Amino acid sequence: MPWPKEIKENPAKFIINSDVTISLSPNNRGRVRNAAVNFLRRLSTRTGVFLGEGFPITNKEGHIKITFDTVSKLGIENDESYTLDINDTSVNIKAKTDIGAIRGLETLLQLTHNNETNYFFPGVNIIDNPRFVWRGLMIDVARHFQPVNVIKRNLRAMASVKMNVFHWHLTDDQGFRIESKVYPKLQELASDGLYYTQEQIKDIVTYADNLGIRVIPELDVPGHASAILAAYPELGSKDNYNYTIERNSGVFDPTLNPTKIITYEFLENLFSEIAPLFPDDYFHIGGDENEGKHWNENKDIQRFKNQHGLKTNHDLQTYFNIKLEKILSKLGKTLMGWDEIMTPNMPTSAVIHSWRGENEGLTKGGSLIKAAKKGYQTVLSNGYYIDRMLPVEHHYNVDPIGNVQLTKAEQSRILGGEATMWSELVTQQTIDSRIWPRTAAIAERFWSPQAINDVNAMKKRLATVSFQLEELGLTHIKNRDVILRNMTNNQDISSLITLSKICEPLKIYARNKDGIEYKTYSPFNLFADACVVNAEDAQPFINQVSNYIKNPNKAHEAEVMHYLNKWSKNYTHFSKLQKNPKISPLEKLSKTISDVSLMLSKAIKNKNISTKNLNIIKDHIKVLSNPFVDVEVAIIEALTRLTHYSESNNLQN
Amino acid sequence: MPWPKEIKENPAKFIINSDVTISLSPNNRGRVRNAAVNFLRRLSTRTGVFLGEGFPITNKEGHIKITFDTVSKLGIENDESYTLDINDTSVNIKAKTDIGAIRGLETLLQLTHNNETNYFFPGVNIIDNPRFVWRGLMIDVARHFQPVNVIKRNLRAMASVKMNVFHWHLTDDQGFRIESKVYPKLQELASDGLYYTQEQIKDIVTYADNLGIRVIPELDVPGHASAILAAYPELGSKDNYNYTIERNSGVFDPTLNPTKIITYEFLENLFSEIAPLFPDDYFHIGGDENEGKHWNENKDIQRFKNQHGLKTNHDLQTYFNIKLEKILSKLGKTLMGWDEIMTPNMPTSAVIHSWRGENEGLTKGGSLIKAAKKGYQTVLSNGYYIDRMLPVEHHYNVDPIGNVQLTKAEQSRILGGEATMWSELVTQQTIDSRIWPRTAAIAERFWSPQAINDVNAMKKRLATVSFQLEELGLTHIKNRDVILRNMTNNQDISSLITLSKICEPLKIYARNKDGIEYKTYSPFNLFADACVVNAEDAQPFINQVSNYIKNPNKAHEAEVMHYLNKWSKNYTHFSKLQKNPKISPLEKLSKTISDVSLMLSKAIKNKNISTKNLNIIKDHIKVLSNPFVDVEVAIIEALTRLTHYSESNNLQN
Repeated sequence: MPWPKEIKENPAKFIINSDVTISLSPNNRGRVRNAAVNFLRRLSTRTGVFLGEGFPITNKEGHIKITFDTVSKLGIENDESYTLDINDTSVNIKAKTDIGAIRGLETLLQLTHNNETNYFFPGVNIIDNPRFVWRGLMIDVARHFQPVNVIKRNLRAMASVKMNVFHWHLTDDQGFRIESKVYPKLQELASDGLYYTQEQIKDIVTYADNLGIRVIPELDVPGHASAILAAYPELGSKDNYNYTIERNSGVFDPTLNPTKIITYEFLENLFSEIAPLFPDDYFHIGGDENEGKHWNENKDIQRFKNQHGLKTNHDLQTYFNIKLEKILSKLGKTLMGWDEIMTPNMPTSAVIHSWRGENEGLTKGGSLIKAAKKGYQTVLSNGYYIDRMLPVEHHYNVDPIGNVQLTKAEQSRILGGEATMWSELVTQQTIDSRIWPRTAAIAERFWSPQAINDVNAMKKRLATVSFQLEELGLTHIKNRDVILRNMTNNQDISSLITLSKICEPLKIYARNKDGIEYKTYSPFNLFADACVVNAEDAQPFINQVSNYIKNPNKAHEAEVMHYLNKWSKNYTHFSKLQKNPKISPLEKLSKTISDVSLMLSKAIKNKNISTKNLNIIKDHIKVLSNPFVDVEVAIIEALTRLTHYSESNNLQN
Repeated sequence: MPWPKEIKENPAKFIINSDVTISLSPNNRGRVRNAAVNFLRRLSTRTGVFLGEGFPITNKEGHIKITFDTVSKLGIENDESYTLDINDTSVNIKAKTDIGAIRGLETLLQLTHNNETNYFFPGVNIIDNPRFVWRGLMIDVARHFQPVNVIKRNLRAMASVKMNVFHWHLTDDQGFRIESKVYPKLQELASDGLYYTQEQIKDIVTYADNLGIRVIPELDVPGHASAILAAYPELGSKDNYNYTIERNSGVFDPTLNPTKIITYEFLENLFSEIAPLFPDDYFHIGGDENEGKHWNENKDIQRFKNQHGLKTNHDLQTYFNIKLEKILSKLGKTLMGWDEIMTPNMPTSAVIHSWRGENEGLTKGGSLIKAAKKGYQTVLSNGYYIDRMLPVEHHYNVDPIGNVQLTKAEQSRILGGEATMWSELVTQQTIDSRIWPRTAAIAERFWSPQAINDVNAMKKRLATVSFQLEELGLTHIKNRDVILRNMTNNQDISSLITLSKICEPLKIYARNKDGIEYKTYSPFNLFADACVVNAEDAQPFINQVSNYIKNPNKAHEAEVMHYLNKWSKNYTHFSKLQKNPKISPLEKLSKTISDVSLMLSKAIKNKNISTKNLNIIKDHIKVLSNPFVDVEVAIIEALTRLTHYSESNNLQN
């Protein structure tokens, strides 16, 4: 995963034993050597094989041979194609560039198989290259700061599914996360001490580059500027306004003043300082969600608009954006912004980051196709908002182009897409479980041919990829139990695990209504934080209920009963827990699930249900349909179907 | 934990609700403010309380009031005392220094209690200060490199149990881990790319300082020098020798040449570059385990000895050490070294780090008392080698002074002790589980009064502390399952968990015989790496067997049977796993444990055992007494006692 472009199987088997060696040609101490060393470590970790040679050999050819022609400068022109051929005695990876070779190594590692006695690579011939050149993940480190190691492990995970753009949302109302030597008040007054030093930024950029990942910084202006203005209020659109770091979530009014010369001086100085830290050609200036309230309330700004013939706030923002485009252009950077920047006067040298869609009042497909047709390069995030907590299939089914007919030129302007991890509701403890594994499916959407779209096949592969991400230090699996241990004060967590496997965190920002329930420093290790999208036991149960209703034979019945029995017994376990204020709110959830499971299991077993019990079941399901402690029960529909089935077939008259 | 010097309980209860605020006096943006913010975050995490104020308040007094007089410069003179008083409506922490205040905050957090409806701090009056001024943890980052975040989370853990010295073993045969701008080949050729930049070192030192932890760097010379010599072979004691980074464990011959002027030029330049990164007064030069083989083999060195009247290699090393002492003294540093440096001519300005004891041919207690009597400041590590994988009680029972009578001056020269985490057999995935929780017990030994020595009471508190360390990001608990999932290729790991709870990794370096089985790049995510010292189910079972044999009543029988039944059934679960080369070696272990448990449980239940079965049991126990896959079974003795009990009481004639 992502599935390669062409794959042919052959009956060979390359056995992985302690003699296995790897060699590189040209012998290069750069990215490929790094990748080869990491490959050997991960292969050893995965197989337990004690490799004799822990590093690529240079005195002769290895069993695994990697050849490539050139070392890449990362960018949208970069060639990532490779071929991979495995036979009984050798493995060959060939690529035009070192990045192609790295991608091939990841494919090879994913091919590790085993039987009782051996680990091996199965014989295959693969020809592969990506569908889109821009396969990104955005991480918002403003709402909740994410330390260097969190970023690094996510970069490793990205590389393992062949993603190549890390979009780093570095500033927002809740914090400015970059050290500035020119404007030190930014980190001193606008970060709560949580920011990256310039050395750390360089370290991360180098780390990403080694993995074949570009880093696009985002400094969001002129809106989302509370933090900047907490440090430099003189740049604000309101005089004598008490600008402070924002602690809640939402869209806020503090906005840079686009009519002041000092605003552009500030941004030019700041961009000149920051831009060199990021060798990539693209620079993201945000530009989203400026509702213009403070502009409207400032007479000087209104006067400025009249003087310059700027009719609307949109025109004023375009004026601002064009100024920024010139500053960035001097720095050798291409301006990129969220799709609000696509106003009639905006030059087509800008890149449009399409994020709004039907939910934001645009037509289906949003601004992506429109931007490409107008001559802009464009990147899609609408449909890939992973912080909305929607199931993986939802994102997997979003195709950037779909069936739209485009000219070749238009098509080439659709660079690809980005999953976006906004961090209002995630901390470093939970962020991995919100990004992964769903982002791996999105990565496949960006890399693999459009025709690779079988959701069930994807889910099966995704389960393996998800577990393998642990090898890279990802915490999306193991931190569930950490949270549950914390909740119970170190009691037996098995009953909470059972519960968490059928509960999902509330979706589409319902968890944080109007952005005021959770502040940036609120606790995020509650039951909802232990739960994940695509709850583990929900889908199998849903499938089994379908099977049972279609064909209520013994085998199907047993499968359904297996879950119902587990859930019906679970409250007994739960009730043994010593209660505390974190567990007690789950009491009703746990008891209701057990009650309804017990009654349904009896109905199924006895092929008999009374009207009274049927009504009780329906009441229980109604109760469970409401959110509890910021989660929703993911088996409601299946329980309802079972209930209707019993009503139709087993009702006692 | 560590237990305070004086503690008086009172019936008050300070309820932790969303109104709780904290204030500092003097209002200081330094260490205490940092500690207070972290305290609020951890309190919120632990209780789930949504605090209204996420930062210390400055406009009025908070419910939790912290007052202190001065901001410390860290060092052995620093005052860490504090008092803590809790009543129904307020909490008062008073200290002479900011570090004392920080220590008090950790105590307060540990006092978090709860009932069904509330979290609260119980009423207490505490007067506290440490017994020793030097309470350290050494981490070896040479044998296995540990990234910045691993060091940081261990620093957090140290601070949570009031440790105050991080001894950083930065160089050894297997790697040189510091960036040098003067001698860049050190990181280029002697680190495999795994080293700390100077910026990262400064970051860690600042991070530690904020937690009240001093950082003592160790550059181990003249032995343990393979890596240095791989970069700069001209400094070696042998010409034309192929110096390379060492991949195995052990004591190796490559040694700096103490007769060459360039050696001292190199060290003076290097120390001059490195020393300023570490503001602490002490600088550790290692000086251990130089067996002098290469010195003996070099005629020039032998000639030099004769010329300078140096009779032995020890004299030559003292000559070397005295030169180093002068270099360090110019840099304002006090030289510290392992106890081999304590030769007759060594000036008493050096600090003796006592590590050898009976196992290394010294008398019990080793060199500590001798050093103190001779006028050296001294620090004890003998008895605190946590990499030896000995049970926690072993370390807890080692008292640095014991019953030895010392003068006040002698006593004051015994600064304290250090737990040592040598890293031949640990990676970043497992290091936490090798350091914690045992080091928390050692921390109590260093902080609390000598009379606090009840092992059972300590173990009970340790279990809580251990679990709470997860809150700081420690991985010692959660990484067990990561390893087991990896072993099984994501199958149900419950049978392996059951097994891991009665198995312990082999002790005292038996796992890596002669240091050649495991190379630095060997896999360390095997079954032994999932197991820990003080295996979870072993001690309870051992206790229950004792109880049962003393008094074989129904209740005691049921307790013993509970475990025997669990283990006897476990092989059935294990056998359902799809086998692979990592699991298969556990087959015999699993089956034998199940067999013996089943037979013993039958004997107990039936009060009857045949001679034949008795002999089978004894054979099984013999089998289990051998190491399997680098673990030992921790319940052998208890099984043997049960067997003897059955033999004596239930044998069928």
